[in-house]
Amino acid sequence: GFARVDTDRLPRTGDPEVVYAAGKTPDEVVAILGTLRDAAPDRPSLVTRADPATVAAVRLRWPEAQVEGTTVVVGDLPQARGLVGVVTAGTSDSPVAAEAATTVRAFGAGVVRVTDVGVAGLHRVLDARPVLQDADILIVVAGMEGALPSVVGGLVGTPVVAVPTSVGYGASFGGLAALLGMLNSCAAGVVVCNIDNGFGAGVFAARIARGMQR
Amino acid sequence: GFARVDTDRLPRTGDPEVVYAAGKTPDEVVAILGTLRDAAPDRPSLVTRADPATVAAVRLRWPEAQVEGTTVVVGDLPQARGLVGVVTAGTSDSPVAAEAATTVRAFGAGVVRVTDVGVAGLHRVLDARPVLQDADILIVVAGMEGALPSVVGGLVGTPVVAVPTSVGYGASFGGLAALLGMLNSCAAGVVVCNIDNGFGAGVFAARIARGMQR
Amino acid sequence: GFARVDTDRLPRTGDPEVVYAAGKTPDEVVAILGTLRDAAPDRPSLVTRADPATVAAVRLRWPEAQVEGTTVVVGDLPQARGLVGVVTAGTSDSPVAAEAATTVRAFGAGVVRVTDVGVAGLHRVLDARPVLQDADILIVVAGMEGALPSVVGGLVGTPVVAVPTSVGYGASFGGLAALLGMLNSCAAGVVVCNIDNGFGAGVFAARIARGMQR
Amino acid sequence: GFARVDTDRLPRTGDPEVVYAAGKTPDEVVAILGTLRDAAPDRPSLVTRADPATVAAVRLRWPEAQVEGTTVVVGDLPQARGLVGVVTAGTSDSPVAAEAATTVRAFGAGVVRVTDVGVAGLHRVLDARPVLQDADILIVVAGMEGALPSVVGGLVGTPVVAVPTSVGYGASFGGLAALLGMLNSCAAGVVVCNIDNGFGAGVFAARIARGMQR
Amino acid sequence: GFARVDTDRLPRTGDPEVVYAAGKTPDEVVAILGTLRDAAPDRPSLVTRADPATVAAVRLRWPEAQVEGTTVVVGDLPQARGLVGVVTAGTSDSPVAAEAATTVRAFGAGVVRVTDVGVAGLHRVLDARPVLQDADILIVVAGMEGALPSVVGGLVGTPVVAVPTSVGYGASFGGLAALLGMLNSCAAGVVVCNIDNGFGAGVFAARIARGMQR
Amino acid sequence: GFARVDTDRLPRTGDPEVVYAAGKTPDEVVAILGTLRDAAPDRPSLVTRADPATVAAVRLRWPEAQVEGTTVVVGDLPQARGLVGVVTAGTSDSPVAAEAATTVRAFGAGVVRVTDVGVAGLHRVLDARPVLQDADILIVVAGMEGALPSVVGGLVGTPVVAVPTSVGYGASFGGLAALLGMLNSCAAGVVVCNIDNGFGAGVFAARIARGMQR
Amino acid sequence: GFARVDTDRLPRTGDPEVVYAAGKTPDEVVAILGTLRDAAPDRPSLVTRADPATVAAVRLRWPEAQVEGTTVVVGDLPQARGLVGVVTAGTSDSPVAAEAATTVRAFGAGVVRVTDVGVAGLHRVLDARPVLQDADILIVVAGMEGALPSVVGGLVGTPVVAVPTSVGYGASFGGLAALLGMLNSCAAGVVVCNIDNGFGAGVFAARIARGMQR
Amino acid sequence: GFARVDTDRLPRTGDPEVVYAAGKTPDEVVAILGTLRDAAPDRPSLVTRADPATVAAVRLRWPEAQVEGTTVVVGDLPQARGLVGVVTAGTSDSPVAAEAATTVRAFGAGVVRVTDVGVAGLHRVLDARPVLQDADILIVVAGMEGALPSVVGGLVGTPVVAVPTSVGYGASFGGLAALLGMLNSCAAGVVVCNIDNGFGAGVFAARIARGMQR
Ligand SMILES: Nc1ncnc2c1ncn2[C@@H]1O[C@H](COP(=O)(O)O)[C@@H](O)[C@H]1O
Ligand SMILES: Nc1ncnc2c1ncn2[C@@H]1O[C@H](COP(=O)(O)O)[C@@H](O)[C@H]1O
Ligand SMILES: Nc1ncnc2c1ncn2[C@@H]1O[C@H](COP(=O)(O)O)[C@@H](O)[C@H]1O
Ligand SMILES: Nc1ncnc2c1ncn2[C@@H]1O[C@H](COP(=O)(O)O)[C@@H](O)[C@H]1O
Ligand SMILES: [Mg+2]
Ligand SMILES: [Mg+2]
Ligand SMILES: [Mg+2]
Ligand SMILES: [Mg+2]
Ligand SMILES: [Mg+2]
Ligand SMILES: [Mg+2]
Ligand SMILES: [Mg+2]
Ligand SMILES: [Mg+2]
Repeated sequence: GFARVDTDRLPRTGDPEVVYAAGKTPDEVVAILGTLRDAAPDRPSLVTRADPATVAAVRLRWPEAQVEGTTVVVGDLPQARGLVGVVTAGTSDSPVAAEAATTVRAFGAGVVRVTDVGVAGLHRVLDARPVLQDADILIVVAGMEGALPSVVGGLVGTPVVAVPTSVGYGASFGGLAALLGMLNSCAAGVVVCNIDNGFGAGVFAARIARGMQR
Repeated sequence: GFARVDTDRLPRTGDPEVVYAAGKTPDEVVAILGTLRDAAPDRPSLVTRADPATVAAVRLRWPEAQVEGTTVVVGDLPQARGLVGVVTAGTSDSPVAAEAATTVRAFGAGVVRVTDVGVAGLHRVLDARPVLQDADILIVVAGMEGALPSVVGGLVGTPVVAVPTSVGYGASFGGLAALLGMLNSCAAGVVVCNIDNGFGAGVFAARIARGMQR
Repeated sequence: GFARVDTDRLPRTGDPEVVYAAGKTPDEVVAILGTLRDAAPDRPSLVTRADPATVAAVRLRWPEAQVEGTTVVVGDLPQARGLVGVVTAGTSDSPVAAEAATTVRAFGAGVVRVTDVGVAGLHRVLDARPVLQDADILIVVAGMEGALPSVVGGLVGTPVVAVPTSVGYGASFGGLAALLGMLNSCAAGVVVCNIDNGFGAGVFAARIARGMQR
Repeated sequence: GFARVDTDRLPRTGDPEVVYAAGKTPDEVVAILGTLRDAAPDRPSLVTRADPATVAAVRLRWPEAQVEGTTVVVGDLPQARGLVGVVTAGTSDSPVAAEAATTVRAFGAGVVRVTDVGVAGLHRVLDARPVLQDADILIVVAGMEGALPSVVGGLVGTPVVAVPTSVGYGASFGGLAALLGMLNSCAAGVVVCNIDNGFGAGVFAARIARGMQR
Repeated sequence: GFARVDTDRLPRTGDPEVVYAAGKTPDEVVAILGTLRDAAPDRPSLVTRADPATVAAVRLRWPEAQVEGTTVVVGDLPQARGLVGVVTAGTSDSPVAAEAATTVRAFGAGVVRVTDVGVAGLHRVLDARPVLQDADILIVVAGMEGALPSVVGGLVGTPVVAVPTSVGYGASFGGLAALLGMLNSCAAGVVVCNIDNGFGAGVFAARIARGMQR
Repeated sequence: GFARVDTDRLPRTGDPEVVYAAGKTPDEVVAILGTLRDAAPDRPSLVTRADPATVAAVRLRWPEAQVEGTTVVVGDLPQARGLVGVVTAGTSDSPVAAEAATTVRAFGAGVVRVTDVGVAGLHRVLDARPVLQDADILIVVAGMEGALPSVVGGLVGTPVVAVPTSVGYGASFGGLAALLGMLNSCAAGVVVCNIDNGFGAGVFAARIARGMQR
Repeated sequence: GFARVDTDRLPRTGDPEVVYAAGKTPDEVVAILGTLRDAAPDRPSLVTRADPATVAAVRLRWPEAQVEGTTVVVGDLPQARGLVGVVTAGTSDSPVAAEAATTVRAFGAGVVRVTDVGVAGLHRVLDARPVLQDADILIVVAGMEGALPSVVGGLVGTPVVAVPTSVGYGASFGGLAALLGMLNSCAAGVVVCNIDNGFGAGVFAARIARGMQR
Repeated sequence: GFARVDTDRLPRTGDPEVVYAAGKTPDEVVAILGTLRDAAPDRPSLVTRADPATVAAVRLRWPEAQVEGTTVVVGDLPQARGLVGVVTAGTSDSPVAAEAATTVRAFGAGVVRVTDVGVAGLHRVLDARPVLQDADILIVVAGMEGALPSVVGGLVGTPVVAVPTSVGYGASFGGLAALLGMLNSCAAGVVVCNIDNGFGAGVFAARIARGMQR
């Protein structure tokens, strides 16, 4: 077949395999998803980067599927353990934040959203401080405001996973400026994911949050 | 004065400020360190990127200072809570791993080291699986083996903080190849720090490990 | 004319010229292909990067043409000598692998395919070890899993030709991350082709495989 | 001769030519400086990027020369008109800030310094707000804290000239990360100079400050 | 809500928030614009990067809106204080210059335009010298003529804000060539904005021009 | 007006201004072209990078216009003085070569074309040696064969202007690979133009060829 | 210990592990070398990138060690099977070629050298054609002549492993220009190694040559 | 031997081979130079990039050698035909200009120097106009003033060979900024050489100048 689904991932890592739909046909996605549902019926299955045709094909087969932008979840969400704060700098960064939040929920942790707290209006971040402090871990999503994770990481001791986005123009070079800014952050306790990779940040943060003492 | 030491960092984030010695004179480092010791006498103070002259100056003032490569710790290490695995691909990546491990200990978590488990001899990583699984979080340090975090992240469910190093030559471009490889890792649950940034990875991992349920 | 077909290539290098269809009109491709068929009727002629219009035009003239994605072969395939393993990390890397495999066959060697053996599920690569060992040479195709050639190259002594693909997003920078990772591989015996260049890898591997003692 | 000194610059632009000493011998610098002193005896002459040998040669000829790091001023400083705030993120950024401040003074404006107000300890910037607001224009110098100009530019309406420095390591790429972060700043009213170019920022800011209504 | 509008920006910085429409729906833009109109009815509100659908939606709600390319202004323009010269190298750079000029007017300064004074026909710049000298500050917009700000900055003492544009092809790399050229300008008194960022240059220049003595 | 046509260019440089149509409307191109025709009726006027709508608009006004791809010439071609060889590596490089050849003719020199002499079939270049030697100057156009100018430059003493093209894929990075290869050529006597800049190479070569002794 | 020597590499891949001495102390190299000698006494052991101190330390312990530049071989060379041609463009590329040739011999194949056959004097390559054709595989080493592998690959059917070197200046960018040129080679059958990686090319080529039918 | 000197270059291209001394020992340079003197005793032999030891070794053997910086000429200079203008922007660009000028003379053309005509003081270029117009071809050397070739190319019709230098700092990126600016020049008739490549520009320009009608 075209795919060799890694159904052994759940026993090995504690979390099931997911489907990255980019570059796959709707039929391929449905087939792989079927295998995943069979292998781990008690855990939800995730599809990321699904275009409308793929979303439709998945919904046809699993009408109960929950869709959030280009992310699809099939199967009941687990009880949430721990709390992940998902913070966005600007409205345009929302799709990546949504991918992150949906992933966190599917991987078993709770989510609290903090939106549009750009650095250019600092009081918005300062006002959000109690929420930022209360979370077990933060995902900070920003494109034109690569500065945000540094500010957040200096404000609270909560660990920060920074996700640069490709939002911006000119010398943003498709997210490279935000990526480099985040990697060089002076605030200790900031780690970084690939540009636009809400999924990866979500899995990482969920694993941490699930294991934290409360 | 030349510096405005952030002594408020401990109450704000739960961890004290540290000294990044690169570009500072030994005298400046000793002065800042003195301020930090006074502000938080119960927590150790860390100096990173200290050259020999700076190490000597610190030792003159605090003979009890513990030195590991270019990292210096002044003050008693806290009781270790949680466990951080520090994994290196090759012998040449050791200095960065040492910076990470020393930071983890100074920030209050325990360390287990796994050395020289390069991907080109896979059985070495496979043999280390029990240790990798047992840690609360892993720091994976690699320059020429940018592939290692992907392999580790696919093997166990323990969260992985990848640290690219500037070890290598030619198209490694000072660590850029390893950095990009780690950012694009297909294994979920891998996040990345700046090239050679053992310190940042150490703070992040210690915070996580300290909070984990055991 | 617009083209000066290198019909002398067969006596000079032992292999005939092929047509790179990108940037050529269907008519131009058919004309060049005609010249190649006349010059070397006993060897198949290859067209790479053919869009649908070009495929149709070639098929109109040579109904027996065999089409695999954007690659077209006109003329009987030679008897296969030697064996090339074509390995892919993910489903999305398949088109490049298909170009490689078709080229290998057209240039006179046999092919065995190993699909979807991503590094994040290592047991899949380990299971494939006998096949990997049995081939004369391996073509390893990967975009988001730039780590795969290193893993394969450390597992078996079979020479590896790595082909980075442009599959991925963000800091993959159109295949650059995979390319750099493969160039820096610590596993000895790994060489690299241009991003998405299944054709070049195929010619190289076929020449090696054809000459190997069995 | 080796140089064609632009003595016409003062009537043309209102400010005299200066000497960029990098790549010139001490003798060449002294010769050009002599021409500049003769052409505009009422305005101070500036030498930037002077190594110790050049500083010594200038001092031998003009014992009254004022030296600040690698910047040398010969001639009386003009009366200060307007006020430029020179803000630094970290101690290591001081040499660039010093070049900027010395230039501002030599070009006829006043200077107020705000040091070590890194974003990771935000209260330090917030405390400096009255000073930042009071200046006619701000020069914000930062290497590892590329975020600082965004924060400052969102806090006050004072125009900001950001100067990235080459301080940092790894993915700072010699100041590129800070440069890109500053160019993408979401705070309106932030403009950028070349990496380490304290001189250019100083001339620009002095011209603005001199012309401002008080 | 999806946005946390920074209505406090006017008291904090003296200028109101604006709407960056890229990546926002027309409805979102209209909603944010409504909040801005309410918060600061005496100052005009700006929308940048508005596509035709957004322009139409804004015009439906505020028929008096003034549209210039992709920039929209709602509310009466303030009395102009000071004068900003907006200079373009080539016809293709006009849209960026228009964004800059509209922003300058909305932020309360006057504008004088100098168009198509490319360096390849130097007399055009030389002829414009009186206008260049008469302005309080200049915005110089250029893509293929990255040399223009250097020439202007050497000709007159008026401060120059250079805006590289993405106009060009080949090794212009989307404006990178112009950006680098402008950053390295030998003429003192040249600062730089992000590629195509007419808005940012406009806010900066307006603030300067408003405060200048006449 | 939107444009300040450099009609003084002919007396100043001996060659008239041309129109770069990218980013201009058909009406703007026609208007500028009219000004150029009036200013220099005895010399042909050139339009480069004209899209079909612009070509149509020009033809409507000047039915005698000669069109070659995206290049348009209005006015009688001058008598050819000297000879420029225009050499292409592959069929896909033809459009750039056509722009170069048309420009050469419009600027008053003669053209001889040598097509499809890729380095991979060296005998084709060797066969063309007499033609290469006979020209006054050569324009060598290549994308995937960045090696061609080096080979030509080592074969004959005729000066070579190399034009990299954006033809290619993967690590060609839009012509960057060819550009760098050509800049590093070991053959003395090779100079380089911008990627795809057939126009610039044409003007340069025509000026040289016109002045050569025969 | 500091190292976990991969002594299982010989049974797994058919070739023993080697020592990459960069970043290791002479003592570490001698210790690892001892382990390798014990594990595979019948095969020579290789040290690459050895500085003079390391060479001396190895020679002290194994006086029979053979040294070629920075490469050291301990143990008897195996009988040569097959033939690898090592081709260099210029004299300055010799050290990389030497590393390649020594590796080939240590890994059991024969070597024939072809030196200084730069493309700018094409007849030198043409004269070498019989030797190039006679080898089983070619290693082509070049820095400023990135064109050489294309020329060789078009001249003969022998498979080509291209090794870019960091020789050059300016826009060679440490070997990047040669690397990109080689990756984009139009000649089929050219694969590429990391910049300056004579070792990797040597292992690959030796494996191929050993297996070829003669 | 280590070198295969291209003594056939003179009959083939009309100019003799030269020695690029970087990466060669003084002995190797002397040996190659001896071969070149024998092969073409009537033409001078050139050595470029000679360090002091190499200069001394050459002078020992040929006491009549003429040395200009790192360039050495052995043999009588030919009668000058045609005139090359060598123009520099700043004093620091002089070494590259000297390499160019010496090469021009050794290859048989005359030289006129125009120094320190930076764009920031435009009148200096304008004053030089008669000299610029009088030359057959211009070599324009500039690092921080990448704008100079555009200005010169717009001022006169003389063909321009631009040589970017590595002079500068920060975002000059070793000459990349100047290189890109020169490649994108809007002035027609500007071609470009590698960064710091005075030699290449000199050969090219001398060939043109020698052939020009006067
Ligand atoms: N064209 C533009 N380029 C860069 N920044 C802009 C632009 N237009 C508006 N902005 C900034 O973006 C901020 C609004 O972003 P948002 O909250 O996403 O609407 C404003 O405060 C402006 O400072
Ligand atoms: N295809 C082209 N590539 C680069 N420059 C060009 C091209 N066509 C025209 N030019 C230059 O662009 C200038 C015209 O630009 P513009 O004023 O925008 O029409 C001319 O003077 C030419 O020197
Ligand atoms: N010059 C070299 N360049 C690249 N890789 C090398 C080189 N020399 C040895 N190696 C590889 O590096 C591995 C040993 O690395 P280490 O464990 O750090 O000693 C060996 O297995 C080789 O495959
Ligand atoms: N400074 C230089 N920069 C670039 N190429 C040069 C230089 N000097 C000499 N060359 C070229 O390098 C070739 C000699 O290289 P080699 O065989 O290594 O001595 C000559 O044919 C020249 O074309
Ligand atoms: Mg906002
Ligand atoms: Mg090892
Ligand atoms: Mg898969
Ligand atoms: Mg600090
Ligand atoms: Mg124009
Ligand atoms: Mg061809
Ligand atoms: Mg040579
Ligand atoms: Mg000067």
